[in-house]
Amino acid sequence: MKQETVTRARQVIARCKTLAAFSEDAGSSRRTFLSAPMRDVHRTFAAWLEPLGATVRVDAAGNLRALYSAKEADAPKLLIGSHLDTVPNAGAYDGSLGVVLAVELLEALEGHRLPYAIEIVGFSEEEGVRFGAPFIGSRALVGRLDENLLNQTDARGISVRQAIEDFGLNPAEIAQSCLHEDVRGYLEFHIEQGPVLESLHLPIAAVETIAGQSRSELVFVGRANHAGTTPMDLRFDAVAAAAEWITMVEHTAKAIPGLVATVGSVQTKPGATNVIAGEAKVTLDARHSDDTVRNRAVEDLLRHAKDVAERRGLSVRSSQRMNQPAVRMDPFLVAQVEEAIVKTGCRHHRMASGAGHDAMILAEKVPAAMIFLRTPGGISHDPAESVSVDDVALAIECGLHLLDQLASAPTFQTRTLRA
Amino acid sequence: MKQETVTRARQVIARCKTLAAFSEDAGSSRRTFLSAPMRDVHRTFAAWLEPLGATVRVDAAGNLRALYSAKEADAPKLLIGSHLDTVPNAGAYDGSLGVVLAVELLEALEGHRLPYAIEIVGFSEEEGVRFGAPFIGSRALVGRLDENLLNQTDARGISVRQAIEDFGLNPAEIAQSCLHEDVRGYLEFHIEQGPVLESLHLPIAAVETIAGQSRSELVFVGRANHAGTTPMDLRFDAVAAAAEWITMVEHTAKAIPGLVATVGSVQTKPGATNVIAGEAKVTLDARHSDDTVRNRAVEDLLRHAKDVAERRGLSVRSSQRMNQPAVRMDPFLVAQVEEAIVKTGCRHHRMASGAGHDAMILAEKVPAAMIFLRTPGGISHDPAESVSVDDVALAIECGLHLLDQLASAPTFQTRTLRA
Repeated sequence: MKQETVTRARQVIARCKTLAAFSEDAGSSRRTFLSAPMRDVHRTFAAWLEPLGATVRVDAAGNLRALYSAKEADAPKLLIGSHLDTVPNAGAYDGSLGVVLAVELLEALEGHRLPYAIEIVGFSEEEGVRFGAPFIGSRALVGRLDENLLNQTDARGISVRQAIEDFGLNPAEIAQSCLHEDVRGYLEFHIEQGPVLESLHLPIAAVETIAGQSRSELVFVGRANHAGTTPMDLRFDAVAAAAEWITMVEHTAKAIPGLVATVGSVQTKPGATNVIAGEAKVTLDARHSDDTVRNRAVEDLLRHAKDVAERRGLSVRSSQRMNQPAVRMDPFLVAQVEEAIVKTGCRHHRMASGAGHDAMILAEKVPAAMIFLRTPGGISHDPAESVSVDDVALAIECGLHLLDQLASAPTFQTRTLRA
Repeated sequence: MKQETVTRARQVIARCKTLAAFSEDAGSSRRTFLSAPMRDVHRTFAAWLEPLGATVRVDAAGNLRALYSAKEADAPKLLIGSHLDTVPNAGAYDGSLGVVLAVELLEALEGHRLPYAIEIVGFSEEEGVRFGAPFIGSRALVGRLDENLLNQTDARGISVRQAIEDFGLNPAEIAQSCLHEDVRGYLEFHIEQGPVLESLHLPIAAVETIAGQSRSELVFVGRANHAGTTPMDLRFDAVAAAAEWITMVEHTAKAIPGLVATVGSVQTKPGATNVIAGEAKVTLDARHSDDTVRNRAVEDLLRHAKDVAERRGLSVRSSQRMNQPAVRMDPFLVAQVEEAIVKTGCRHHRMASGAGHDAMILAEKVPAAMIFLRTPGGISHDPAESVSVDDVALAIECGLHLLDQLASAPTFQTRTLRA
């Protein structure tokens, strides 16, 4: 590892910490869509980027857009970015790291121009905290920041449109933030936010797919009864039925490679110590990179639930709350990422992302790829979120190899925007 | 069955319905400790009892006390009763039936006096609704309506003492409501409030024991994590651990005859669809007529919980909220009840009560016994609560045989109050 790269990594981490201090909350980090501290973030990025020869603006959806032009005019364009908003009580790296790291890559170019332009994008909104709807920023780039989304309101009744106006931007210009045909790809560096890389002793990895996701709610309906006077064989116990099923959910998920299935919430009714529960409401979250595997698993689990209920003389009703297909990253870019990782001296590894990311939205229009960085303890969405200097240095090295590879890849130069 | 007894049974049911109409709530039945409608109940009982030659009063704890004197002065005394308070949205028979049925037994005596006095007791409070503390009425009879209980307050901040004063009674006279040495026994007719007699096709049965009861709270503590990014084998899922244990609770209880064990409440933290739960708080209610069996089962279950948690890398903490020993009914009286049941032509059956009753409190001082009546569908604490005319008629026949048997039982006449 070059000492220079380590120094760059230290700067990346320091800059993420600087950004984390721009917060709506005193004492903890929270930066929702176009909140006041987002202005400080934009100003700070401009101060970092303009000296590097980039042109910085904020588009009508509140996204930071910094253009580092190519060697020649009419060249194709590579996007590199991530999001600048945060959850409440956030860590310093979720989102910010990807944008700051992109700045560092430009800085490492030291004014050198490539055969393609680089546009750094700092998305205005990914987490869905303020409006309950995620990906507002990236949706604008693919033309999906529509009237419906613009009219959604936050807890104080302020709409997305109003928030944009209040920030001094013009909602009528949102269409202009859309991607054009010159964009050849999107790269996103992001912390893994999970324990997989740590458990594999790997610093970075290529994301191959963003897992599809099903969310359902199930209600087991039995009969509420006296916990003292009802013998075990005359019960219709909704909690016992739900528990049997939850155990099955875990067994099923453990048996299918790559499947994660979670019952995160159980609500019991009436929920008293001395009353057999008549109702148990449970949630199911299931994810897999292969939609067929996921959908079949969810179907099986729902059938298991019915079987458990019927065998016990109960009923169960279920409703699907989400069925989001998996999104494949671009095979060419994933292969390029892998090659770059190998060049850093690391073992290459392809993985699925269990969480959604802006890359998932961008992939609707342009070839997209992600690079995950190991997340110590898998801790994210928490002030204890961290990354190691060495891992960030490897990510920078990987990024520089990537830029280099793409500069000499004719396939990359000729790709076009999807319809 | 004599037609006269069936007519009496119909009157019992009609009277229970009359009482149910005396309610704090319009449209549903609710009668808590010394609430206004309790006055109507007292007045109505006086109108039923005084023509039969009984002396009616309300003691300082709000209990209705009706004395039907013996053939001779200084004779021993038999108590027959149950409670007059109800839960919210109550049925017409829980409690009331036992007191109204006692009135019917007096009426069937047609003025005939026995070698012992009969005192009908309508307990002022058994359910614990108003003050969160049950058995206020029966505790007064055994000398346990103490300062601590008198100072407990209801939701509006009114103490038991104040409620007694507001009703026009004198808390200073509570000691006078205590039982004296002349009391030889206590009989309580009560609906089963469970499905056992119905499942056995039996109309009435003798209660042999009131089951002991343990209540505990357990908290499984794992690690909250992202439902998408955390693979199944790197989770510390509190819901999955709790579910495995709840399934064990059911298995254990089914394997031990007479044991009932219930997890009535599950609370998950943070309780979100897309977050692996870091905490699951569950309750355990376990009951058995044999304290050794119950305590061993609870110990086993708590050890299982620890095993489940440890195997999964979680921890569990538990706290005991109640450990109430089983109360045996008086063997002599239970045998008498059984003999009386056989005389009605029914198959005799001894059972445990899974719920607490005033008889449990009275048994601290005097021989006590209970007779359960079949409860259709096991439904109680609900407006749909019911009893059949035939079953009430059999209970009346059983009661008359009992009065007759005790009149000629020297053992009964010579028993004394417990220290």
